[in-house]
Amino acid sequence: MTDAAPTLADPSTPFAVLDIEKARRNAQRLTARLAGQGVLLRPHVKTAKSVPVARLMLDGATGPITVSTLHEAEAFADAGYHDILYAVGIDPHKLPRVVELARRGVVMQVLLDTLAQARAVTEASTRAGVTIPALIEVDCDGHRGGVDADGAALLEIGAELARGGDLGGVLTHAGESYFAATPEARRDAAHHERDVAVHAADRLRAAGHDVATVSFGSTPTAHAADDLSGVTEVRAGNYVFFDLVMAGIGVCDVDDIALSVVVTIIGRTPSGDLMTDGGWMALSRDRGTAVQERDQGYGLVADLDGRMREGLLVTGVSQEHGIIGARDGAEVPDLPVGARLRILPNHACATASQHDGYHVIEGGTDVEGAIAVGDHWERLRGW
Amino acid sequence: MTDAAPTLADPSTPFAVLDIEKARRNAQRLTARLAGQGVLLRPHVKTAKSVPVARLMLDGATGPITVSTLHEAEAFADAGYHDILYAVGIDPHKLPRVVELARRGVVMQVLLDTLAQARAVTEASTRAGVTIPALIEVDCDGHRGGVDADGAALLEIGAELARGGDLGGVLTHAGESYFAATPEARRDAAHHERDVAVHAADRLRAAGHDVATVSFGSTPTAHAADDLSGVTEVRAGNYVFFDLVMAGIGVCDVDDIALSVVVTIIGRTPSGDLMTDGGWMALSRDRGTAVQERDQGYGLVADLDGRMREGLLVTGVSQEHGIIGARDGAEVPDLPVGARLRILPNHACATASQHDGYHVIEGGTDVEGAIAVGDHWERLRGW
Repeated sequence: MTDAAPTLADPSTPFAVLDIEKARRNAQRLTARLAGQGVLLRPHVKTAKSVPVARLMLDGATGPITVSTLHEAEAFADAGYHDILYAVGIDPHKLPRVVELARRGVVMQVLLDTLAQARAVTEASTRAGVTIPALIEVDCDGHRGGVDADGAALLEIGAELARGGDLGGVLTHAGESYFAATPEARRDAAHHERDVAVHAADRLRAAGHDVATVSFGSTPTAHAADDLSGVTEVRAGNYVFFDLVMAGIGVCDVDDIALSVVVTIIGRTPSGDLMTDGGWMALSRDRGTAVQERDQGYGLVADLDGRMREGLLVTGVSQEHGIIGARDGAEVPDLPVGARLRILPNHACATASQHDGYHVIEGGTDVEGAIAVGDHWERLRGW
Repeated sequence: MTDAAPTLADPSTPFAVLDIEKARRNAQRLTARLAGQGVLLRPHVKTAKSVPVARLMLDGATGPITVSTLHEAEAFADAGYHDILYAVGIDPHKLPRVVELARRGVVMQVLLDTLAQARAVTEASTRAGVTIPALIEVDCDGHRGGVDADGAALLEIGAELARGGDLGGVLTHAGESYFAATPEARRDAAHHERDVAVHAADRLRAAGHDVATVSFGSTPTAHAADDLSGVTEVRAGNYVFFDLVMAGIGVCDVDDIALSVVVTIIGRTPSGDLMTDGGWMALSRDRGTAVQERDQGYGLVADLDGRMREGLLVTGVSQEHGIIGARDGAEVPDLPVGARLRILPNHACATASQHDGYHVIEGGTDVEGAIAVGDHWERLRGW
């Protein structure tokens, strides 16, 4: 350990670690994939909720971005981001905050899929004298919300927005692609998502409307898309961290996962498993891999230097306790009290949300083999 | 809506609501249950993580309390609490913080179940010249950690502590009682937990040690115990809020649940369910009732005034979206965009941890039938 910088052995556990070498590589992979496809990348900041991570995703640029809360929108506007899409169906009660952002000069787009929301947005923007571009959410796989691309609601909402508001375009989200476990299935999902989005845009255009934005995205379909004709922008967020769910369907390798949680051994269970101070408060309750071919428990286990401890996984958690057990005949190593391990998450969005920031590392070890921790990057929280 | 105070219709959703009338009633129920049993109540503050809630649990007194993190210990010490048990097996790396609390005059007890931890505590307290009473965790149901009440480790650790440190006593936690679905099963669990704790204490006494503390507890066994002979203190935390897991095993009624999350309808799914802005970020990923006889999804649904919407439950969540569906042939009501509902949690500890504070209500409605919100009580976060 050098005197210069703390290492992963120093901060009080549990804490979240972000390997920015991996995050940068993950970001570049999607940027490279989309280069030449004629689309804008509008990364979703909801996974990392961190301005420095967003900078890394956009190679230093301050936008465009997608957000999941108005709190993110406000914080990123404060940090100089001025092209923001709030990609959760707008609650009319939140419109005064949207208006306020628009007044500050932010191009603040909202999402909706009902006539009631379209009327509320039109009324609020007209009254305030600001422009609030609205995207119409179009369902492509029955996963969540959105109107039918072939239904009447699409055109009714489009007409309402064109009359008094600002019809920005259409948006799709292929939520079911998180369960698409083969490259072919994800490519099919991407093609279908694109076709639905473009079809909805074409119907609106045929009805006489301008449709500037055709917004497409999810980490699996963004990485699978090989023809984005008609799409204008791609949203994805998880890809910068990745996680065991994404590794489980083959979108990344376990080695690509940039987020982990450092925990300390505090004893053994009566049955001989390891007890740690990393419970669900540190790892989250997310069990995304439970429905996958290989259930990874509450996370896989690595040493402090990132090398995987094959056969070990977090088999149970309570609030501030984690239990590490073995499978496939592996043995539970006899690690002493005080030893530290890193846990790789099922779902990076959920695990990251349990922490107020990231201890940042950048690969390499110091002379004594310890990994130096650099900055602490803060995370946003709340709504 | 009056001009005087905001109501549940005002704050931006999602947000956590605490009904302190119910919380006070829940607190009094356990206090009354333990009165006359000759034991100290040492409430666990890990569920609420809030100084005002702890005050309510102890009827204004500043201790004794149980904590799950040293951050809780430090914040409660700042608030005047000076008798604190940190009930997670001690990580030696955290001992400087424990020493610092002891130096401030806090009776700061730690928990351990290995010789290595006992040596670390003895060494740290000797070097600093402070007293750190240590409780030995004794396993009573194979749920988590703890030594065998009949094993050699108990006496070895006791001897190590008696030699150079401070053997405070023993502690049990009947974690399996959260799955005990009948009053008889919980009473049996309570008797067994008591018997194990007292037996361990007696073995230490027979070896010549003073054992001042025999610490017992979990919300289910604290409420089931009818004979605590030999026990000196009872720990429980969840009982002040309660939740659907506790209601599911019969420790409380759904009507006793003091914590809920207010969400807003933002649309409908293609299949006709309600879409809300309350996803796992607001509700947590906890699915504690999934293993119970009645699976309550991600939570049950009530109107803003607390009346249950029978047959409705949160059937799915993503980060900032919740889906409310019906079961048992119930119909999904046609609620408009902007309407608000309250969601009752599976697991109050997990749901509360998603929020930075509680909007406090105290029963009654104002003249227009709206429920007034009083203070905002802050919650602690981090380690």
